[in-house]
Amino acid sequence: MNMNMNEPKTLQILLTLAYDGTAYCGWQRQLNGISVQQRLEEALSALFDRPVAVKGASRTDAGVHAKGQRASFFLSELKIPIDKLPMVINSKLPADIAVNGAELVPVDFHPRFGAKVKTYCYAVWNDAYPLPQKRNYAWFVPARLNVADMAEGAKAVCGTHDFTAFCAAGGSAKTMVRTVYELEVSQAGPEIEIRVTGNGFLYNMVRIIAGTLVYVGQGKIKAEDVARIIDSRDRVAAGKTAPPQGLCLETICYDAPERGHT
Amino acid sequence: MNMNMNEPKTLQILLTLAYDGTAYCGWQRQLNGISVQQRLEEALSALFDRPVAVKGASRTDAGVHAKGQRASFFLSELKIPIDKLPMVINSKLPADIAVNGAELVPVDFHPRFGAKVKTYCYAVWNDAYPLPQKRNYAWFVPARLNVADMAEGAKAVCGTHDFTAFCAAGGSAKTMVRTVYELEVSQAGPEIEIRVTGNGFLYNMVRIIAGTLVYVGQGKIKAEDVARIIDSRDRVAAGKTAPPQGLCLETICYDAPERGHT
Repeated sequence: MNMNMNEPKTLQILLTLAYDGTAYCGWQRQLNGISVQQRLEEALSALFDRPVAVKGASRTDAGVHAKGQRASFFLSELKIPIDKLPMVINSKLPADIAVNGAELVPVDFHPRFGAKVKTYCYAVWNDAYPLPQKRNYAWFVPARLNVADMAEGAKAVCGTHDFTAFCAAGGSAKTMVRTVYELEVSQAGPEIEIRVTGNGFLYNMVRIIAGTLVYVGQGKIKAEDVARIIDSRDRVAAGKTAPPQGLCLETICYDAPERGHT
Repeated sequence: MNMNMNEPKTLQILLTLAYDGTAYCGWQRQLNGISVQQRLEEALSALFDRPVAVKGASRTDAGVHAKGQRASFFLSELKIPIDKLPMVINSKLPADIAVNGAELVPVDFHPRFGAKVKTYCYAVWNDAYPLPQKRNYAWFVPARLNVADMAEGAKAVCGTHDFTAFCAAGGSAKTMVRTVYELEVSQAGPEIEIRVTGNGFLYNMVRIIAGTLVYVGQGKIKAEDVARIIDSRDRVAAGKTAPPQGLCLETICYDAPERGHT
């Protein structure tokens, strides 16, 4: 392996990737567990025959999935067409991780700090019995949820707020203010999807939004009390943190939000 | 364990069950592998503290899933309300198998021979790149499929035909004639679903229908040639057998088909 870390880093490549997070300790490298980042860095290092480190856009937790995670790395040169790169990287990756896009970005681009808009989807399986095929991809909630109430409660989350009430301990954010552009609750048979788009999310914020809206659907929290809970800045007032397997990072956008979002 | 197999079998109970077939050698008990039937019989035997054997409605292959498989067993008495039975059985089952219904049926009822209508769904993931979350639940086909052509080809499959051309070697059917009541091809984003309802299916028949329609979508077989392929009774003329993970047994009905089906 070529260990020369000082070669010129003239190209930055931004990957889009999907993964099934079931088997991983999360996106970020950790000492005690296999992360998605580790598997991706192993694949790139094998492919380019030198150590490759990636910067990820979003630190998804253990068991959380992605369709549109982003991660970038530097190269001194790329000898294959960039549109062939995803397939070549995928040949080195396990079946539960797949690159689905690659593009050249400026060397000063940062996949995390440059992100303007992120969309997450949280899936709930709301039926009397679990569906085994969904056990790793949705939160099984057997009691019938009132979806109209959930949608009503969701309205209060939209907009710019101090989201301290929806932030787990352990985050490192400098400000608790975030803007939620859209929060949609939809139902197709027993599956309820909570899809949220915002300019960024605090630690566990999407899972706490999901847990709070499920409490609203169960009647444990009234839809009209969601605004008050946000105003309280009290984590205890909100619902429980929904389990990780229902969560999927769908898209990350590096352009300013579209008109109509704000 | 009570080994008295001669106790009166006065109750027959019909279960509906869902499973993720990924980890199993199929529905049916086999010497070389763990089957869904074995796990269900182990759960029932533990619950009722005696050996319980089940009769299944459909012998799904390794890797094939179910939402509405049926299986029945006999008891001399049932000490709990039957509507509580699924949850009690589920407490003894692994997370990839779940009972979602239980009813009393006459002792001469047979879950396989009594089945009048079955519906299977075959899922294709038709995108340039695989989605890891779907790898065990859909057939990844990267080349863009023409769904309108697939729907056109599907029309020829509907009706009563000798389906020898769509039957794998190894089946034990006395007649190759089956009636397909409905065959619907639908698309939602990159996911294409082929949903087929019939009075019964030959060995691998649904997977060969799916493989043939994917060939139609790829232009390898013309939609107007599907009728000719069925008439040929030649397995070689049809498309390949689609892989098992895309297939799910959705429902089994014990009543005669609804008006409009025939």
